[in-house]
Amino acid sequence: MSAVDGSGRPDHAARRAGLRDLLVENGLDALLVTDLVNIRYLTGFTGSNAALLVHSWDGSQVDEERAGQPAAEDPPERTVICTDGRYITQVGEQVPDLRAEIARASARRLVELAGEWQLGRVGFESHIVTVDQQRGFVEQGSGLEFVPTPGLVEQLRTVKDEYEIGRLRAACAAADSALATLLDRGGLRPGRTERQVARELEWLMFEHGADAISFETIVAAGANSAVPHHRPTGAVLAAGDFVKLDFGATVDGYHSDMTRTMVLGEPSDWQREIYQLVYEAQRAGREALAPGVAYAAVDAAARSVIEAAGYGDLFVHGLGHGVGLQIHEAPPVAKSATGTLLDGVAVTVEPGVYFPGRGGVRIEDTLVVRAGEPELLTHTSKDLTVVD
Amino acid sequence: MSAVDGSGRPDHAARRAGLRDLLVENGLDALLVTDLVNIRYLTGFTGSNAALLVHSWDGSQVDEERAGQPAAEDPPERTVICTDGRYITQVGEQVPDLRAEIARASARRLVELAGEWQLGRVGFESHIVTVDQQRGFVEQGSGLEFVPTPGLVEQLRTVKDEYEIGRLRAACAAADSALATLLDRGGLRPGRTERQVARELEWLMFEHGADAISFETIVAAGANSAVPHHRPTGAVLAAGDFVKLDFGATVDGYHSDMTRTMVLGEPSDWQREIYQLVYEAQRAGREALAPGVAYAAVDAAARSVIEAAGYGDLFVHGLGHGVGLQIHEAPPVAKSATGTLLDGVAVTVEPGVYFPGRGGVRIEDTLVVRAGEPELLTHTSKDLTVVD
Repeated sequence: MSAVDGSGRPDHAARRAGLRDLLVENGLDALLVTDLVNIRYLTGFTGSNAALLVHSWDGSQVDEERAGQPAAEDPPERTVICTDGRYITQVGEQVPDLRAEIARASARRLVELAGEWQLGRVGFESHIVTVDQQRGFVEQGSGLEFVPTPGLVEQLRTVKDEYEIGRLRAACAAADSALATLLDRGGLRPGRTERQVARELEWLMFEHGADAISFETIVAAGANSAVPHHRPTGAVLAAGDFVKLDFGATVDGYHSDMTRTMVLGEPSDWQREIYQLVYEAQRAGREALAPGVAYAAVDAAARSVIEAAGYGDLFVHGLGHGVGLQIHEAPPVAKSATGTLLDGVAVTVEPGVYFPGRGGVRIEDTLVVRAGEPELLTHTSKDLTVVD
Repeated sequence: MSAVDGSGRPDHAARRAGLRDLLVENGLDALLVTDLVNIRYLTGFTGSNAALLVHSWDGSQVDEERAGQPAAEDPPERTVICTDGRYITQVGEQVPDLRAEIARASARRLVELAGEWQLGRVGFESHIVTVDQQRGFVEQGSGLEFVPTPGLVEQLRTVKDEYEIGRLRAACAAADSALATLLDRGGLRPGRTERQVARELEWLMFEHGADAISFETIVAAGANSAVPHHRPTGAVLAAGDFVKLDFGATVDGYHSDMTRTMVLGEPSDWQREIYQLVYEAQRAGREALAPGVAYAAVDAAARSVIEAAGYGDLFVHGLGHGVGLQIHEAPPVAKSATGTLLDGVAVTVEPGVYFPGRGGVRIEDTLVVRAGEPELLTHTSKDLTVVD
């Protein structure tokens, strides 16, 4: 079953088939999906209230009965989405292939349905479902066994299909073009405020095809560049400043993430030295990306460069993270992360060194792990850019 | 203790004192706060990873010992915020009055501390904490009794202090000004796409002082106006269309929320009739707002107008919701909601009638409940606006 159908749209049925395989592996009769991003991934629905019941029915049976055949069609009567009255029209348009229930308490309605169908073991997203919600399910779902099954859909989501990689490319291209236009226009110059630069960069991302902003744009000038997640203020850019820009666009729900650090005017020796160090660390991190490599080993490849220079304590965060329908998603690329990269995983590589009160540098790309070289999605130059 | 200190900044210590009163009422030794919005409310911290342990220590004792005196200072050693290394500088700047711990697993670190301090009953936000997180607390926090206490901080947050109302006013003013500018410029005209109008409206909110957009702007033209939460598309505005605009700005984290529905050109009789009906329902809802009135009664005041006209089935959502640091927060203003309004509660009033495939009207204001008349924060005219 191909991951992209003929019209270049996401193949939600293929994703649900993948999930059913995981349900069978985990001995579950169904999964109650309540995370809205996971529901979007599995159905295309983008409303703000929804639950989805995915039945494992047929997965294994079909395999036995028709070995070698493609998986059966999604059984529409057993996979049900529920949303509330605001979304009656929308759910019909976005999810024409599934039965839709309409109820304000969407998860509650699907637990009711699971009870009527006398399902046995029903998995739920225990990393998402709150303590209060779970108590509600248990009190309501007589006869059902609720099994905590964290991260099943997220596990599927780590490996991007070609549709998703296409959307990530488009999102990264919007960010690249926005930054290029900003620089061409002289938008980064002494006298402007961080906030003005952030607003213009965001506006330019929209102009270049973004549907939305990936996250609150970071523009951090001078000493503010030492704050890894600085929020733009009225601080004025000055000659000699580091200016750190961390920003992204979303296209069809997929996020780009890129950081560049530039200097306004001639860099000092200290700025050149620290920039070069982070540049080398980032390159080492990128070059470590390959299927089968442990997340922690990728982090170590970059971190060891910074540690060798004696600045390990100033690299205060993980090297990167998965990126897709969320700006931060599995897998983490960090010291303590367990697991290994697969072909098609999209991640950021973003080492940084921060001198509190003085300034900092971070360089970040979004990439897709591929057999052989990783695919770089953020193409803006990483040479030390001096803004005149 | 006043809710606004001399410099017009939020008085976080006063809010924490209010919370300690609730802890004492609930027989808790401390509350572990993990919701980031609640943490922002209680401390001013805006980072993306934090936990806060608020100790009930001293609240009742102090009252006994010094009756009539202002509440004691926040005991800094017993109220602790924890965040990770990315935010070392930021937490020092934003939360100078509290002890800060630095750890990636922020809640875990505070559970450890609660254990060291041999606290007894520790409340947690069971409406926020996931099943997996709670299991982690229990496995880790030997000797502590974890008590599900949903919504304590949200309960405090429903009643806005004057600082907060000031921020809500500013956010609503940014939205009002943006819409006025859009109309002045002729930005709403046949031939433009929903998406173009949405982007311009968002840009204008920034120009008029917004820090961010409250939520994804809704621009819905023609039949799309029948979709309550339509996302802007490339659909082109045409003469005779209803155009529904639902949008908002945030200022210092506080959200505005306003909907206006307009007609491009001369309205038909059907459009006039449905507009007038929603207008009357919205007025009835606004006029019902007063301290002591049940949420459900406010909903009923507006809903009964629409039901009397025979369109009750087409008003497919609740009348409104609380608004503040979140775009949707307590209290709900809906049929099934329990509870009554208090002086200082900020809510939306937003009835709608939607004819699928044809068009719909929603009119929404943000208001603050006051003794006497409610304070209207969104001032854009609600007369049927005909855009020539």
